[in-house]
Amino acid sequence: MPRRTDVPTLVAQARDGQPRAVARLISLVEDASPVLREVMAALAPHTGHAYVVGLTGPPGVGKSTSTSALVGAFRARGKRVGVLAVDPSSPFSGGALLGDRIRMQDHATDPEVFIRSMASRGHLGGLAWATPQALRVLDAAGCDVILVETVGVGQSEIEVASAADTTVVLMAPGMGDGIQAAKAGILEIGDVYVVNKADRDGAQTTARELNHMLSLGPAREAGAWRPPILKTVASRGEGLDEVVEALEKHHAWMSGNGTLRTRRQRRVRAEIEAIALAAVRARMGGLSAAGDALADRVVDGTLDPYAAADELVAGLGAGQPSAG
Amino acid sequence: MPRRTDVPTLVAQARDGQPRAVARLISLVEDASPVLREVMAALAPHTGHAYVVGLTGPPGVGKSTSTSALVGAFRARGKRVGVLAVDPSSPFSGGALLGDRIRMQDHATDPEVFIRSMASRGHLGGLAWATPQALRVLDAAGCDVILVETVGVGQSEIEVASAADTTVVLMAPGMGDGIQAAKAGILEIGDVYVVNKADRDGAQTTARELNHMLSLGPAREAGAWRPPILKTVASRGEGLDEVVEALEKHHAWMSGNGTLRTRRQRRVRAEIEAIALAAVRARMGGLSAAGDALADRVVDGTLDPYAAADELVAGLGAGQPSAG
Repeated sequence: MPRRTDVPTLVAQARDGQPRAVARLISLVEDASPVLREVMAALAPHTGHAYVVGLTGPPGVGKSTSTSALVGAFRARGKRVGVLAVDPSSPFSGGALLGDRIRMQDHATDPEVFIRSMASRGHLGGLAWATPQALRVLDAAGCDVILVETVGVGQSEIEVASAADTTVVLMAPGMGDGIQAAKAGILEIGDVYVVNKADRDGAQTTARELNHMLSLGPAREAGAWRPPILKTVASRGEGLDEVVEALEKHHAWMSGNGTLRTRRQRRVRAEIEAIALAAVRARMGGLSAAGDALADRVVDGTLDPYAAADELVAGLGAGQPSAG
Repeated sequence: MPRRTDVPTLVAQARDGQPRAVARLISLVEDASPVLREVMAALAPHTGHAYVVGLTGPPGVGKSTSTSALVGAFRARGKRVGVLAVDPSSPFSGGALLGDRIRMQDHATDPEVFIRSMASRGHLGGLAWATPQALRVLDAAGCDVILVETVGVGQSEIEVASAADTTVVLMAPGMGDGIQAAKAGILEIGDVYVVNKADRDGAQTTARELNHMLSLGPAREAGAWRPPILKTVASRGEGLDEVVEALEKHHAWMSGNGTLRTRRQRRVRAEIEAIALAAVRARMGGLSAAGDALADRVVDGTLDPYAAADELVAGLGAGQPSAG
């Protein structure tokens, strides 16, 4: 039997900013550890402080470079920064600095920066579930800002974006971005748009196209947030201050009118329901004898499946509290 | 408002073998009608009689032709036959005789044959859910045998196969069947294997390969069912009697040792759990105020998401019975 995980000590160390404790707690999240419930209970009182920024966009736009440059810009403002690089398609994880991650090594020795790659290892609900839990770890570790970078493409990006307070959509000149963006539904999720590699030909065209496509969306009400379109050359650190300013502006706008709280409530509610459904499913599996007896009656035609389902649901109340 | 569906009359007419009532009831299943619950309750006492045979296999093996030929063979024995052609990938349905279905027209005017194409129109749980319910309709309509033919490929085939008492896997000479079969997991689900188009070159080779691959599986215990490998030329009606005999043998074997009941229990249990989970999900969605209040506390850090999920589950008990 592995040694018992000392959750209170781990949480205390993580709050103290010890990188190994933070890494260990995120591993517990990734592995859907049996102590996850205890971890989340211990973290809860220390969460709610971090501002979560999602970075998404098609492959090749320079997401990792932009994330790294953004880390630098926030560090220059004295912020403690967390980075969660989420790769829904990769079986690898565990904080290894692989491939593009190498660019993060600029910050690897900075004690005020926590960097973590994450994959959906053991989790039933996949990353949609693991991401908010990992964010709570970094939040409790005192991060002022957490950047969530999605490595994958498509639906998973949108799911991960939904875990963020603010979503930054990255583009680059050329690449047929317009069509790709429309396909990925990326035009609905961006709060800030960034055309990276702006020193290349076509940056102005991409920005103009983006502006045009955004203008085709539903009319914005008075006081609504109008997503800015910025230009960066992340590899040279150019334009990042403007991005940070846009993020601060969006954060202030959201805080001022209650949007920040509404967004957080909505995603927490989805998270709670997912956990509750998993608990119900597990409990149903546990009602083995009762479930078999109900199935028997349906096979015999003395009960219909809906009435059987009702009895099964009613039986859940008599069960043990969910074990998470 | 559409006219109220008169479920008792429809069920009485279906039991009387009236095709329009049978078709209407299956449409209610497909559309996940609000009266589905009432329909299932009314059907329950009249179910459990039909023997359900699934037909599956890669595209091009002659599934429709084989199904049609099997209908003929069962009709020659005086059986009332139902056919459910399930196409998980098609948005079309409603009993239209499209494409391959044209072959079924041999039986279209036979009052003892019910033929229905089905797609996953309105159903949340898709065909995995709709199929058993449509089977109950045909069962209550007095079908002795119901043939479930899957038009799609892959995972959906296996799901549909799991709705059957006996699964017939069809192959044809050539086509690299061996590899395809292994990929599709088809070697685990067959109770009877049929090499159709057996007048073509390579039929003997395909049968031998199949036999070899089946022999590679786990050792069978004494008294276990050994899936026969038969040959047919469905387009000329050749070999179908042997298939019917193999099915009767398998049915007798399953009835004799309790396998038939065990299989039915297992799939009904899965069905009940799916309905129960959908009901729980709907009820959670209904707990709007409670869910928002819990989300609030998690956002504030005064509650962790697992504890919130527990409270949400506990709150379900106080809700209304599920409406199906």
